[in-house]
Amino acid sequence: MTTLEPHHDGSPLYVSNSSPEIGDEVTVRVRVPVGYGPLERVLVRSNPDHEPLWVEASLDGESDGWEWWSARIVVANPRHGYRWHLVHDGGRVEILSQGGLSGIDTLDAVDFALVAGNPPPSWTSDVVMYQIFPDRFARSAAADDRPTPEWAIPAQWDDELIPVPPGRGQQFFGGDLDGIVEHLDHIAALGVTMIYHTPIFPAESNHRYDAARFDEVDPLLGGDDAYLRLIDAAHARGIRIMGDLTSNHSGSAHEWFRAAHRHPEAPESAFYYFLDDENEDYESWLGAPTLPKFDWSSDELRRRFTEGADSIVAKWLSPPYGIDGWRIDVANMTGRLRDIDLNESVRRAIRRTMIEIEPETLLVAESTNDAASDLQGDAWHGAMTYPAFTRGLWAWLSDPTGIPHINAFGEETDEMWYFGIPTGMPSYDATQFVAQMQRFTSQLPWRVRLGSMLPLDTHDTARFATRALPGTIPVAVGLSMTLPGIPVVFAGDEFGLTGIDGEMSRTPIPWDRIEEPDVSARIDLYRELIGLRRSHRALGDGGLRWLHVGPEGVVFVRESTEGVVLVVAARDDLDIALPAAAVHGAGSAVSAFGDATLGVAEDGGIVLSAEGPTFAVWSLPGIQPPPATASASATLPQAGGIADAEIAALDTDS
Amino acid sequence: MTTLEPHHDGSPLYVSNSSPEIGDEVTVRVRVPVGYGPLERVLVRSNPDHEPLWVEASLDGESDGWEWWSARIVVANPRHGYRWHLVHDGGRVEILSQGGLSGIDTLDAVDFALVAGNPPPSWTSDVVMYQIFPDRFARSAAADDRPTPEWAIPAQWDDELIPVPPGRGQQFFGGDLDGIVEHLDHIAALGVTMIYHTPIFPAESNHRYDAARFDEVDPLLGGDDAYLRLIDAAHARGIRIMGDLTSNHSGSAHEWFRAAHRHPEAPESAFYYFLDDENEDYESWLGAPTLPKFDWSSDELRRRFTEGADSIVAKWLSPPYGIDGWRIDVANMTGRLRDIDLNESVRRAIRRTMIEIEPETLLVAESTNDAASDLQGDAWHGAMTYPAFTRGLWAWLSDPTGIPHINAFGEETDEMWYFGIPTGMPSYDATQFVAQMQRFTSQLPWRVRLGSMLPLDTHDTARFATRALPGTIPVAVGLSMTLPGIPVVFAGDEFGLTGIDGEMSRTPIPWDRIEEPDVSARIDLYRELIGLRRSHRALGDGGLRWLHVGPEGVVFVRESTEGVVLVVAARDDLDIALPAAAVHGAGSAVSAFGDATLGVAEDGGIVLSAEGPTFAVWSLPGIQPPPATASASATLPQAGGIADAEIAALDTDS
Repeated sequence: MTTLEPHHDGSPLYVSNSSPEIGDEVTVRVRVPVGYGPLERVLVRSNPDHEPLWVEASLDGESDGWEWWSARIVVANPRHGYRWHLVHDGGRVEILSQGGLSGIDTLDAVDFALVAGNPPPSWTSDVVMYQIFPDRFARSAAADDRPTPEWAIPAQWDDELIPVPPGRGQQFFGGDLDGIVEHLDHIAALGVTMIYHTPIFPAESNHRYDAARFDEVDPLLGGDDAYLRLIDAAHARGIRIMGDLTSNHSGSAHEWFRAAHRHPEAPESAFYYFLDDENEDYESWLGAPTLPKFDWSSDELRRRFTEGADSIVAKWLSPPYGIDGWRIDVANMTGRLRDIDLNESVRRAIRRTMIEIEPETLLVAESTNDAASDLQGDAWHGAMTYPAFTRGLWAWLSDPTGIPHINAFGEETDEMWYFGIPTGMPSYDATQFVAQMQRFTSQLPWRVRLGSMLPLDTHDTARFATRALPGTIPVAVGLSMTLPGIPVVFAGDEFGLTGIDGEMSRTPIPWDRIEEPDVSARIDLYRELIGLRRSHRALGDGGLRWLHVGPEGVVFVRESTEGVVLVVAARDDLDIALPAAAVHGAGSAVSAFGDATLGVAEDGGIVLSAEGPTFAVWSLPGIQPPPATASASATLPQAGGIADAEIAALDTDS
Repeated sequence: MTTLEPHHDGSPLYVSNSSPEIGDEVTVRVRVPVGYGPLERVLVRSNPDHEPLWVEASLDGESDGWEWWSARIVVANPRHGYRWHLVHDGGRVEILSQGGLSGIDTLDAVDFALVAGNPPPSWTSDVVMYQIFPDRFARSAAADDRPTPEWAIPAQWDDELIPVPPGRGQQFFGGDLDGIVEHLDHIAALGVTMIYHTPIFPAESNHRYDAARFDEVDPLLGGDDAYLRLIDAAHARGIRIMGDLTSNHSGSAHEWFRAAHRHPEAPESAFYYFLDDENEDYESWLGAPTLPKFDWSSDELRRRFTEGADSIVAKWLSPPYGIDGWRIDVANMTGRLRDIDLNESVRRAIRRTMIEIEPETLLVAESTNDAASDLQGDAWHGAMTYPAFTRGLWAWLSDPTGIPHINAFGEETDEMWYFGIPTGMPSYDATQFVAQMQRFTSQLPWRVRLGSMLPLDTHDTARFATRALPGTIPVAVGLSMTLPGIPVVFAGDEFGLTGIDGEMSRTPIPWDRIEEPDVSARIDLYRELIGLRRSHRALGDGGLRWLHVGPEGVVFVRESTEGVVLVVAARDDLDIALPAAAVHGAGSAVSAFGDATLGVAEDGGIVLSAEGPTFAVWSLPGIQPPPATASASATLPQAGGIADAEIAALDTDS
C-alpha cells in the first residue's frame, strides 16, 4: 500500500473535542487526496440509540494536495459511533471506518467512536511508562535486616532464576521500595514519566499477585513509609506512580479469605464463590487454590474494595499516598463466571471512585487478548494487551526458531513462549504486523487506543531481546515510542536483558553492569528514543496516517497542527517513492533519529531508502487545514425521510 | 473463490448440540480438504470468562476427499466463542473463524459461537413466514358495517395509494382479520408455515404501530373474536401466528400515555420520559409526538407489559389465543436513550415471560441495520434485519437507475428508496453480495442466523420486484429459500406487486387478479420454491459451504447427513469447474429446480454451466463423516502452561 487514501482518525486534526459530554456538538473532519474523487458529496452516519442518523458534510477547501470536509455531530450516547460515506461523481460510495475503506456496508463495531464522559487524565498522551517488578529491581541496605519469610527461597542478587516450581514463584531476591528510590536518577534520566509497579501488598509469592491484604504495603518492601518515600521522591522528579490491583481474586492468605474459608457464617463468606455449605471448596483463578475468585455480587465486598472514599481503590489515591492510577490485574476475567457477568459494573465502580477521589488518574485494564468488548471507554482508559502491538511485533521482528532451555515444567524445549498460544509464534512480514494492529485497534475508540500500552514485553512475557533479529531492537523500541498508545519499558530491557518466558524475564537488574559499553549503549538508545517521543507532541496525540505498508517495512506520519513526525521502520531494505501530497514540507524535514535517506524530487515527490533493519524519524512542520465550515443544520431526516413523512402524517392528528 | 477450504459452521454436521446448557460438553468438528495440509495438529481455542483455553483436536479419518477432526469443548458462558487453529507441517498456522481463514490473529467477535440457554423453538428451521399488513390484505363483508374512524381517510380496495401525508398513514382500506381467514387457503397453498402480521391493536393509523392499548384487538379488525377465529383457523392448517409488539413506544393515544400526559401524579407518569414537571413534553421515537418512548426503568410498566403471566407479552401467548411468537418493533432502540441502556434487561424480561408461558415460541427483533451487538442469543432468537441479506441482494439484482415517482415529501424523484440510506443504492456483483452477507453474519451465532429473517422486502421497504433486473425474481426468491435463515414472503409479492418505498409497497392485495397468467405464474414460482425449501431438511438446518463465489454468481451447498442440496444462483452466465471433492455424489444429483447444467467428468470433477440469470437446485445424498474420536481429556493448561506452573508453585504452600 503506497497509495494516498482518504483519512480520518480521532486526533485533534479531525475531531474538535475528544472528551465531550452527551449532547455536545463535535466537528469531525475527513481529508481526501485531491484527484481521488472527485467527490460529489460526503456524509457522516451516526447511530444514536442504535438507529442511523445522517449529517451532510461541507467541503472546506484544499490544502497541500488534500480536500478537507467537515461535519457537526451531536454526541448521543456514551460511545458515539460514526462513519463517513464518500460519494463519488456517478454515485459510487466508499465507506470509511476504523475497518478501513469499504465498497460494501460496514459493521457498527468498527465505526470511529467518540466517548462521552470519563475522560482520561490530561497528561495521558505524555506518559512514558517504566514497569518495575519490585522483588527484582533493587535492594536497599535495609533489606538485609529483614527476615526471609517462611514461604520464600532466598536468593542472592546474582543467582540464576529457577525456571520450575517451587523456585518459580518463591525464589525471593528481596528487592524493595527504597531500592527503587535509590535508583530514581537512573529512571528519571531515561526520561520516563510514570512508574508502573506490580503489586506491593503483603503476599506469599515473589510476584505478590496473591495479596494477603490490600490496605498496607508489604513490610518486606519497606512498608507504608517506604511507599510514601517512593511516591514523594518520584513526584519530586515529575514521575507519576501507577499501582497494581487484583480485582479478579485475592490470595488464599488474604484476611478476607481466611475469615471466610471454612467459616460460612463470616461476613466475608459472600466475597468468594464457595461451592459447598462448609465453605471448603471455592472458585479460583484458572483453578489455582491460592487465588480464590471474588464474587462481586457482594455489596460488602464492594464497600470495602471499590466503593467510595473508604475503599481500597480510594485509599492509595488519597493523601498521604496520592498515586496516579491503577493497573487492574486480570481485568478481563473480573466478575465473570459461567452465566454471571458483573464486569461492567465492577469496572465502572472502580472508575467512579477514582473520579470521586481524583479524576486526573489513569485506569488501565489487563486484557491480554482481544480487549475490544470491555474497552469502549466507560471505565478503563486503556488496556495492557498483547495482540494489538506486541504479538505482531514479535512475529515480525523475532526469530521463532529455538534456543534450548528449561520450561516451566522442567522439560528441555526449544519452543519460545509466545503468549500462551500453544501453536507457537508465527512469522509475519510488516504487512501482517500492520494488518494485525489495525484489526485489533479497529474496534477501540481512538481515545482508548491512546490510553493502551505498547509493551515490547512485560513481567508476564519473554523479553523481546531474547529472540530479536539482529539490528531490530531500535525498530521495536522506536515503534513503541512513535505509534499511538503508551510506551512502556519493562525495567531491565534497557540493560539488554533476555528471558525465555514470563518467569525468566523477571531478572534482577544487574546494576553492576551499568557502565559496560553494550549496556550503556542500550540505555542511551532508550534515552534517545524516549526523548524523541517526549519532544514531539504529535507522537502523543497526533493523527496516524500510513504512507507505505509493504512486506519489508512501513512508513507513517503522526500529524498535528504544531508538528509532523515521519517514521520509517523496516526489517529489510526499503526503497520507495511517495507522491508530494503524502507529506507536506518534506523539503524542510529535519532528521531526528536514524540514518535512512529522505530525498525530495523536483515535483515534490519523496524518495525514502534505507538498509534494513532501520528505524528513522524526521521532524516536519505542522499541517494547516482550511477552517472547518460545517453548519449545525446539516442533519438529514432520520430513517431516510420515510419515517419522517409518517411522523408528519401522524402529527396531523396528535 | 473456487478453491476448497477448511470448513466449520454451527450445523449438526459440525456441532453435536446447538442448544446446550452451561457445563455441557459439545463435540465440534472441522473438515479439511485432503491435500490442503498436511496438517500437523488442529486445536480449538475457547475463551471461557474471557481468557483463552485450548483443546487439542483428534484426526477422525477421511471421507470423500476430506479429513475430519473433532474436539470436545465444555460450554462455559451463555455465548461460548471458539475458533480453530490449523497447524500445517512446518508450523504455519491458519485460524478459522466466522471471519473466514486468517494468517493473523482474529477478533473474539467473529468466533464461532455456541449459545447456552434460551433455545429457539424446535420448529424454527421449518418456518417459512408470510407477512401480512392487515389493513391491506383482505376485507371481509363485516368490514362494510364498521364506521370509518375519525382519523382515517377511507379508501376503496382498488384506490391508488397516496404517497404523501396525510394519506400516508391515514388512508384506510379496512382490511380485517376475517379477511385473512377467508384467504387462508391461498396462504396454505403457498406452503408457508407461519403468518407474521403487523400490529392489530387499536391505534390511530393504518399501520397501527401507534398502539392505543395492547390488551385488545382493534374492533376495526373484528376484535378479539376475529383474532381467535384467525388463530384457530391457521393452527388447524398447521400455520403458526407471530404477532407484532412495540416495546420502544406506544401511540400518544395509548391509555397509559393519556393517563400520564399532563398528569404528573398518574402512576403511568413513570412509563414515559417526560421532560418537564407538568408532563407536557416527552421523548418520542425519532421526535414523532404521536410515538412517546417508554421508560423501562418503571417497574409498574414492566409489570403490566413484560413481566409474568398477567402481562401483555403473556396474554396473547396464553389460552385462548396462544400465538406462537412475537416480532418486536424497533427492538434496536428499545430502552436506549442518551446514557441509558436497558435494552438487555427488557429483551431478557420479554423472553423470560415467553418461556414461562410457552417455551416453544419465537422471538424476533426488528434491528434494521447491524444487529450483531444485541443478537448474541440471550433473548432474541433472530433479527428482522436488512444488511445481512436484503440490501446486498437488491444491490446485486436490481437496477438502481430511476423510475420517476412522487416521494414521501410530494416531490418528484427518480431515486429509489434504499433502506433510509441517503447515499442511495450501490451496485454489487455477486462477490460483494456474499462479502456483505458474510460480514453481517460473522458476528452472529449460527443459531441466531437460523432464526433471522431473509426478506426480499417488507412493509417498511420498497418491493423487490419494483426494480428487479429481468429474470432475477427466481434468483432472489430462491436464495431466500435456500440460505440459512427464515424465508419470508411479504403478502403481495406472490402477485408480482411493486412499490417504490415502504408506504407504496403496502398495496391492497389484488385478489381479483389471482387468475391472471402472470399472477398465477408468480404464485406457482413461490409455491414451488417454498415447496423446495420444505422438502429438503438440509435447507432448514444444514451447513452452508460456498463452492464458488464469483462476480457472475455463486454456488453453494446446504449439507446434512440426510441430504445435500446444491444451489446455483447467478445473474450472469456461469461456467465453472469444481474438483470432485467439492460435492460428494454429484453423479447421482437430481435436479430439483431450474435448468442449469451439471456435468460430472471421469475424474469426478464437476462442471456447472448456466445462462444468467439462473437459479438451479439439485438434490444429492447426505454426507457421512467418519465417527468423531475426540477425547474429553484434550484440554491444554490455560495461560499456556506458564501460569499453571505458577499455580503449582503457589500450591505447595496453600
